[in-house]
Amino acid sequence: MPEHTTERVKQILSWYGSDNPGTLANLHRMLMHGKLGGTGKMVILPVDQGFEHGPARSFAKNPDGYDPDYHFQLAIDAGCNAYAAPLGFIEAGAAKFAGQIPLILKLNNSDSLSKTGGAPCSAVTASVKEAVRLGCSAVGFTIYPASDARNTQLEELREITQEAKSMGLAVVVWSYPRGSGVSKDGETAVDISAYAAQIAAQMGAHVIKVKPPKDLVELDAAKKVYEEQKIPTKTLAERVRHVVQSAFNGKRIVIFSGGEAKGTDAVLEEIRGLKEGGAFGSIMGRNAFQRPKAEALKLLSEVMKIYAS
Amino acid sequence: MPEHTTERVKQILSWYGSDNPGTLANLHRMLMHGKLGGTGKMVILPVDQGFEHGPARSFAKNPDGYDPDYHFQLAIDAGCNAYAAPLGFIEAGAAKFAGQIPLILKLNNSDSLSKTGGAPCSAVTASVKEAVRLGCSAVGFTIYPASDARNTQLEELREITQEAKSMGLAVVVWSYPRGSGVSKDGETAVDISAYAAQIAAQMGAHVIKVKPPKDLVELDAAKKVYEEQKIPTKTLAERVRHVVQSAFNGKRIVIFSGGEAKGTDAVLEEIRGLKEGGAFGSIMGRNAFQRPKAEALKLLSEVMKIYAS
Amino acid sequence: MPEHTTERVKQILSWYGSDNPGTLANLHRMLMHGKLGGTGKMVILPVDQGFEHGPARSFAKNPDGYDPDYHFQLAIDAGCNAYAAPLGFIEAGAAKFAGQIPLILKLNNSDSLSKTGGAPCSAVTASVKEAVRLGCSAVGFTIYPASDARNTQLEELREITQEAKSMGLAVVVWSYPRGSGVSKDGETAVDISAYAAQIAAQMGAHVIKVKPPKDLVELDAAKKVYEEQKIPTKTLAERVRHVVQSAFNGKRIVIFSGGEAKGTDAVLEEIRGLKEGGAFGSIMGRNAFQRPKAEALKLLSEVMKIYAS
Amino acid sequence: MPEHTTERVKQILSWYGSDNPGTLANLHRMLMHGKLGGTGKMVILPVDQGFEHGPARSFAKNPDGYDPDYHFQLAIDAGCNAYAAPLGFIEAGAAKFAGQIPLILKLNNSDSLSKTGGAPCSAVTASVKEAVRLGCSAVGFTIYPASDARNTQLEELREITQEAKSMGLAVVVWSYPRGSGVSKDGETAVDISAYAAQIAAQMGAHVIKVKPPKDLVELDAAKKVYEEQKIPTKTLAERVRHVVQSAFNGKRIVIFSGGEAKGTDAVLEEIRGLKEGGAFGSIMGRNAFQRPKAEALKLLSEVMKIYAS
Amino acid sequence: MPEHTTERVKQILSWYGSDNPGTLANLHRMLMHGKLGGTGKMVILPVDQGFEHGPARSFAKNPDGYDPDYHFQLAIDAGCNAYAAPLGFIEAGAAKFAGQIPLILKLNNSDSLSKTGGAPCSAVTASVKEAVRLGCSAVGFTIYPASDARNTQLEELREITQEAKSMGLAVVVWSYPRGSGVSKDGETAVDISAYAAQIAAQMGAHVIKVKPPKDLVELDAAKKVYEEQKIPTKTLAERVRHVVQSAFNGKRIVIFSGGEAKGTDAVLEEIRGLKEGGAFGSIMGRNAFQRPKAEALKLLSEVMKIYAS
Repeated sequence: MPEHTTERVKQILSWYGSDNPGTLANLHRMLMHGKLGGTGKMVILPVDQGFEHGPARSFAKNPDGYDPDYHFQLAIDAGCNAYAAPLGFIEAGAAKFAGQIPLILKLNNSDSLSKTGGAPCSAVTASVKEAVRLGCSAVGFTIYPASDARNTQLEELREITQEAKSMGLAVVVWSYPRGSGVSKDGETAVDISAYAAQIAAQMGAHVIKVKPPKDLVELDAAKKVYEEQKIPTKTLAERVRHVVQSAFNGKRIVIFSGGEAKGTDAVLEEIRGLKEGGAFGSIMGRNAFQRPKAEALKLLSEVMKIYAS
Repeated sequence: MPEHTTERVKQILSWYGSDNPGTLANLHRMLMHGKLGGTGKMVILPVDQGFEHGPARSFAKNPDGYDPDYHFQLAIDAGCNAYAAPLGFIEAGAAKFAGQIPLILKLNNSDSLSKTGGAPCSAVTASVKEAVRLGCSAVGFTIYPASDARNTQLEELREITQEAKSMGLAVVVWSYPRGSGVSKDGETAVDISAYAAQIAAQMGAHVIKVKPPKDLVELDAAKKVYEEQKIPTKTLAERVRHVVQSAFNGKRIVIFSGGEAKGTDAVLEEIRGLKEGGAFGSIMGRNAFQRPKAEALKLLSEVMKIYAS
Repeated sequence: MPEHTTERVKQILSWYGSDNPGTLANLHRMLMHGKLGGTGKMVILPVDQGFEHGPARSFAKNPDGYDPDYHFQLAIDAGCNAYAAPLGFIEAGAAKFAGQIPLILKLNNSDSLSKTGGAPCSAVTASVKEAVRLGCSAVGFTIYPASDARNTQLEELREITQEAKSMGLAVVVWSYPRGSGVSKDGETAVDISAYAAQIAAQMGAHVIKVKPPKDLVELDAAKKVYEEQKIPTKTLAERVRHVVQSAFNGKRIVIFSGGEAKGTDAVLEEIRGLKEGGAFGSIMGRNAFQRPKAEALKLLSEVMKIYAS
Repeated sequence: MPEHTTERVKQILSWYGSDNPGTLANLHRMLMHGKLGGTGKMVILPVDQGFEHGPARSFAKNPDGYDPDYHFQLAIDAGCNAYAAPLGFIEAGAAKFAGQIPLILKLNNSDSLSKTGGAPCSAVTASVKEAVRLGCSAVGFTIYPASDARNTQLEELREITQEAKSMGLAVVVWSYPRGSGVSKDGETAVDISAYAAQIAAQMGAHVIKVKPPKDLVELDAAKKVYEEQKIPTKTLAERVRHVVQSAFNGKRIVIFSGGEAKGTDAVLEEIRGLKEGGAFGSIMGRNAFQRPKAEALKLLSEVMKIYAS
Repeated sequence: MPEHTTERVKQILSWYGSDNPGTLANLHRMLMHGKLGGTGKMVILPVDQGFEHGPARSFAKNPDGYDPDYHFQLAIDAGCNAYAAPLGFIEAGAAKFAGQIPLILKLNNSDSLSKTGGAPCSAVTASVKEAVRLGCSAVGFTIYPASDARNTQLEELREITQEAKSMGLAVVVWSYPRGSGVSKDGETAVDISAYAAQIAAQMGAHVIKVKPPKDLVELDAAKKVYEEQKIPTKTLAERVRHVVQSAFNGKRIVIFSGGEAKGTDAVLEEIRGLKEGGAFGSIMGRNAFQRPKAEALKLLSEVMKIYAS
């Protein structure tokens, strides 16, 4: 990280002019931290899979990951911009690693056990007050656009966003379309991803996380426009560019998740596409912590090199 | 109980570095009290069966148990680490036995009468403020992972956990999978037990109570991993080891319930397996208070000997 | 009423050691008032039938009962320990009869008009603050164990109980099993009555009101225990003894309702059984206020004589 | 105490028509309790001298009085209407003697050590909430009319009065002229006593305590009127009549303190004068608890006989 | 410390019947902890001199005392019943030594720099909520009876006492006469010490700390009584007996401070007098922490032996 705030970071912060200085300072903290500090790019380590998929599915492959300390140290050693996790994991290390890495407290979570008898909707599992107590820079919140539980989710997010901003925190929204409003395949369609980014931005998110979009337009009403306006969606870079444009013409930080664990080449190939399309960075969980630590550090280092280039 | 805090207890407390000193002092109180005080092991007497199963099914076998004083005295005489019960039972003795045994106020309860017309979800029957007024060291809360009422339960737990921690109390979570997300048999499958422990840990529990796991993997998505990673689940000790690992690599206190009343040999056999697998202890209700007092004291003494060995 | 607190009343108060002096003073007030004052027995006049069954069904037989003053005066003249009613009736006489009889404000009520579209659940119709303003000694609350609305009811009761205790009031719980979890006949089965008393006690009630139990065991899981343990349930006295034992081994005040209006002989026969079984008293509404006043006074006097004997 | 509310007590309560039923019930409680119960007269035992004059000056003469239990039992055995004391003394016995005697919590107190560097003004030493928790019937508060700290005192009283009335408590005001506005001798001048009673009544007191007035008119402006109107002030009875008249024409309960310990004859002589003048009773501390218990009971009994005659 | 609560501790707790079980449990904790645990006697280590007298005057003699850990460890090693200090010192060790020794958070403090422009009055430097967060068993508060700032101090204490009791904490009051109402010499006069104990008791203190009284009666009004009643004040034991009697006839825990550092013989001589007079123990600061640790442990051990004898 450079000694002084870079022009790029100043430019990014200038897009959030209505925010309190405390929130700006926390965005600054994340943007200036780690190997990508000052570049305006971010690589974040998220570890909520223990909650979302269960412990064995998440950590058996690299059993060091059962230990909460491991992920703090991995994020620090890799030079990530931030580490994101649910309450239990953050609490387990927040004192020991205090100040060593910006933290994002995930405020809601799902598990793979409950059917919840209806529309997808995470449970709110932590609060803004706990994020403050634990010294976090931001809170994270997942919404499922296209879920019938839209109002519940957006209203929970509204309250959290308002409280977080009043307390000087940043807000990171995971925007993952899912539910009765989209087909399974359409969840990552380019129009849907762009729409998911737009909703998160309109809800007041500072940082928006979406999945890399596929070359597919899901909604009939949208299709017509994509064709008429000849919006290019063939390459990943083109699609990413469209999604970033959909988040206030690139004036909101949009980062992309890596999805399931896969081979190193496939990961790097995708990162190059994201970078070319103007992504602000990646949030990379399973591809990092399910590899042995040395491999994970190597992969993250290469990912950061691509973004820094 | 030894006069001075043991190294093992100091090590356990070091895992809870984000907690207030008040909460640490209450964990210390439970870990240092009774015959197992200082060993890092715990045997807790829970008496919520009157509420959960009705009075005759709970107390007719040993009618002394109808009397709330009986259980306070049993826990004290047996040298348990703590006594856990619903509001009525705790209130009935909290003044008379003040300070003589760490108390855990169970904040939610079910009964066997209501169908509740849907997903399993206990009623919240007491509050953190009452735990403080009554001088309790911890609050207890039951969640049913796999219930469709997941969000209600987790959100109640979140509020209770946050309030309890701010008041210097510890949080004990009973994590009992039940509901539409698991088969009846799968409720104690090893993957489900491990997942239940993980969820409780991620919710911020200090002490996690699960049932002894069976040699069965319930979820298809999990099965693949258990096979690929050759996770041993044949013996009780192996399964317990996996569950304890699933609670932050053994950095959260995981204790096991004994379930239905059974013969002394069966109880001790199970305790040996739990001990071998690294369990932090047991929470033993019916097997204790449904025996005549002399027998109960003898059994608890033998259980404690196994854990202390 | 005797001039000085009796040993029996002191013993009863000793069971409530976690309560504030204000609550103890109000329990003392009810236990020392009226013809049974000091005996440890109570006869309470409840008049919530106007709300629950409608005015004509309640008062047409003895039209004096349409007038709220009538019931205050009846309770005073009969030497009852307390008078219990909904907000309107209490407000109508609280100033005029201030201090003349301990009052219990019923905080929730049902009517016979609403179907409530589901599980039985009374409406909360008054508050603890109003009980304080009106000079009441206690609040009353009805729960319907076995209702699908269990959680709503118990959570309302929890809040009321906590507030009432902090304000120095006593809590009287009407525990009337009803709903999808029991058969119509089973509502007064002995196991169900005992369970209903246990639930109220565990919720922190000071005084518990149940219906006289029938010689019937409703739940299969319970039947086995009643048979194995040879719990006697043939006579009313035996069943009452079991219900009283189920309320913390007789360390909570358990009183019995009289149910529908019936002949004097039937009433007194039942009272004798209740007395023999160790009941702490009766709460007698329709059998009192639906008789002409002279008859009602005579009946209540005979009831009290039985309890005092 | 008679079984039923007397006409006289009903008449007295009718003067407080704006009060909540809870406050009326507490006035009723004090008026109906003890040997004078129902007569409309009151004898209250106050023990705040430990605080006001120090322990040896208060209790050395009859060392049983060092013990808080002693005063509760004395008030009960003597058949007083109420017992008044500061927080510590009330707390020490409120649970043990719960319900046995109406309690008045003195909410402010002075000591004889502090000069307070200015105008006389007691410290507020307890709160209305504690009076509620402890099961008190009333709160007590001392004002010093003629003190330069008038506004502080009256404004504290205003807040306490408002809160106490909303919680169903009665308010007893000790109105003791003192300070730069009166001569030492004039503190008990008849015009000053009458004025002190008027101020307490106008502040909303339910019960007013003043000192027996002397045959002296302090204020020049008043003198003229007393002479012109030929207000008789020669005998104690005449002066008391005037003071009682000054408290809303006798429609507020005015009781008189006994002052320093003195001989039995002197005490009874004074009581006869008070009775003849229409006093509602006495508040008798040192003359009671500084005598050996048997003597104190005898004296209080004679005092009560005078009032009851 | 004995394994089970002694009869003497049960007796002491019985004097606090109006308190919540939480407060009783914390009194129990202090009374059962350390070498004197169970005897009903207490030796407490207080270290507020750094604040009150400055660091060099307090710690230069034994420079280990500059370190907050030193005092926690000294209190633990010596087997004291509790350790009392201002916020900074408590915070510095509360997590590290969590649960190892009951803590008393001093909520107000003076320094030797400010003149405070008037009457002696400590500044409120911490809150009840912080005591709860830090896991303290009690709060401590200093009042200066005889100060012109009486009302400010007592009103602060009233609020703290009410809040502490509602949160299940005990209240320890340092009652040190000082100010315009007493001569310098009279600050420890026997009448003044007894009065100071009485005021603290009437304010609701659970534990009262005064200085050892001198054979001197300060107040003229008191002198007469001491002479008439022939209250013996010649030996320290006689004077202590009088002070303890002045605190509710010995029904409040009264402990004595040791004052300035002095020779070992002088300290032990004084302790013998305190013990003989019925003191509940000592609070010994400078005489403990200004000695080298080995000497301090030896002295405290001898002090405890005298109290235990």
